[in-house]
Amino acid sequence: MSTMKTRPLALTMGDPAGIGPELALAAWLRRADEDLPPFALLGDVAHAERLAGRLGLAVPVRAIASIEEAPAAFGEVLPVLPLAAGVAAEPGRPDPENAPAILEAIDRAVALAQDGRAGAVVTAPIAKSVLYEAGFAHPGHTEYLAALATPPGGETPLSVMMLWSEGLAVVPVTVHIALADVPHALTRERILATARIVDRDLRARFGIARPRLALAGLNPHAGEAGAMGREEIETIAPAIAALRAEGIDATGPHPADTLFHARARKNYDAALAMYHDQALVPIKTIAFDEAVNVTLGLPFVRTSPDHGTAFDIAGRGIARPDSLIAAIRLAGRLAGAGAGVPT
Amino acid sequence: MSTMKTRPLALTMGDPAGIGPELALAAWLRRADEDLPPFALLGDVAHAERLAGRLGLAVPVRAIASIEEAPAAFGEVLPVLPLAAGVAAEPGRPDPENAPAILEAIDRAVALAQDGRAGAVVTAPIAKSVLYEAGFAHPGHTEYLAALATPPGGETPLSVMMLWSEGLAVVPVTVHIALADVPHALTRERILATARIVDRDLRARFGIARPRLALAGLNPHAGEAGAMGREEIETIAPAIAALRAEGIDATGPHPADTLFHARARKNYDAALAMYHDQALVPIKTIAFDEAVNVTLGLPFVRTSPDHGTAFDIAGRGIARPDSLIAAIRLAGRLAGAGAGVPT
Repeated sequence: MSTMKTRPLALTMGDPAGIGPELALAAWLRRADEDLPPFALLGDVAHAERLAGRLGLAVPVRAIASIEEAPAAFGEVLPVLPLAAGVAAEPGRPDPENAPAILEAIDRAVALAQDGRAGAVVTAPIAKSVLYEAGFAHPGHTEYLAALATPPGGETPLSVMMLWSEGLAVVPVTVHIALADVPHALTRERILATARIVDRDLRARFGIARPRLALAGLNPHAGEAGAMGREEIETIAPAIAALRAEGIDATGPHPADTLFHARARKNYDAALAMYHDQALVPIKTIAFDEAVNVTLGLPFVRTSPDHGTAFDIAGRGIARPDSLIAAIRLAGRLAGAGAGVPT
Repeated sequence: MSTMKTRPLALTMGDPAGIGPELALAAWLRRADEDLPPFALLGDVAHAERLAGRLGLAVPVRAIASIEEAPAAFGEVLPVLPLAAGVAAEPGRPDPENAPAILEAIDRAVALAQDGRAGAVVTAPIAKSVLYEAGFAHPGHTEYLAALATPPGGETPLSVMMLWSEGLAVVPVTVHIALADVPHALTRERILATARIVDRDLRARFGIARPRLALAGLNPHAGEAGAMGREEIETIAPAIAALRAEGIDATGPHPADTLFHARARKNYDAALAMYHDQALVPIKTIAFDEAVNVTLGLPFVRTSPDHGTAFDIAGRGIARPDSLIAAIRLAGRLAGAGAGVPT
């Protein structure tokens, strides 16, 4: 494997009643075909063994005492860093009893990455509702990671979601809010803060010397000179001018409908979309199974598959591991070299 | 050519300073390769000849006296139905002096289709601003066609824009308005009126016995049960229920980001998007050169290429005729059989 010399990745199990653990098994089985970097599963040995038995997957599971053992073990067994909290999950039956183990997996993966012992964190999906029932108080997975990354007495880093596939990287400037709330949530400051993080992390993590950022307009035809909305004139164009004044190669506002076809994609390294679906529609249309969620702005590399817990199909062996495999592979590339990863 | 028995198509020249006329020449040259149905250009013989000479295209142009002469002539020459109004256009230099000819081409094409002498109308792009300077008072090309199709003393038909390519057809329920205006423009009545026209025309024109309409949500994740916007609950879902009660196979609201990838597209004949970019982003991402604009709701078939006048590249022979060719081919299929055109 090409990346054996890099530090192993820390893969969280996610919700054990979802598809995360079975995707981890499936990814391990394809480690050679997919040239995956070694990873350790933050999970439960007995649960992983039961699941492998249930699905008929020939995955030997072995507990390791420290993540440093993962690379040597990875060729022969799925190395598992066992959790202190118990896991008692039936596939498809989420249970708040598992919340401590779900959170412990995340906490330990982050600590390993922060300590430089793991090359990156790869997270399997969690279900917020299950954690909320157990008292979890963060808006989501990424915000929880940002909170864990906050230095004592320091500021919580602004995390930015990027969806990445070979050939297209997109960043929504506003994310999980109603469409009606987008126009007033879309401020110049928000665009600037997002673009700066994208620019910085594409340089530092992806090894792109001078990232080209293409910013979409908000309105049809990017507003057509104010005929259909003025956000391009009043908010987006001034933000682009400010970014350019800082030396960031930002262009736009571009009409969104002509920004994502094959020829257009060659003109930028990342597209900044103004709202969720403007970013997610194009990448999921062309790379539905392979898109990876990369969190920018954190002090460590974090990727995750671009899907949820899928409780409805958990335990049946039909969930596709493509996105988790892509997330593991990208994490390895970002952790290993930090250079020359195309967007 | 497979469709020689059908009535010829009426192709308007569009703005003669734009790329319309040169695309008509390019399409005619590819008539055999592309198996195009015969069409007559509503335009100007001398202008077409000058343009062919300038671009070095071997296109013999011949004036015909009536559109019925087009099929026999089409194999050897580009048949032109001459306009009464003069055309004096330099490529790339739009001139309001051409407005009477631009409108005459549209008027006559519609009249030929209404009289049953043309199988369909294919329109080349116009620039509204040029026409406005000459006193044109309609919001756009399609609205002008709807006005022409209004019976004396009758109601103007509601026209619906569908973007079509092999494998994906999308209809935006709201179109050329600012994104901030979408939530209140998106009424149950508007969704119903749009979906009924799509259902009717997919049956009558595309020959689909029971069209499957997939309606997108407005908000991220289709609102996630009201957590991010309530339009799905209050407007879209009730509209879908009403459509289903009428016997229309409408489903949704579907999260937009997972509605357009290859597997998802197999589940419907047309997707109804709630706003412009939600419809245009996916189709232009996967079929940028081949997407066709089809106007539903009119008493005749009308298609057009999915691009504008492109004054900046007119007269240089670099504009791609793919979309016009696709528009001509689709118009021929809809006019000829009216059956079995996949969406």
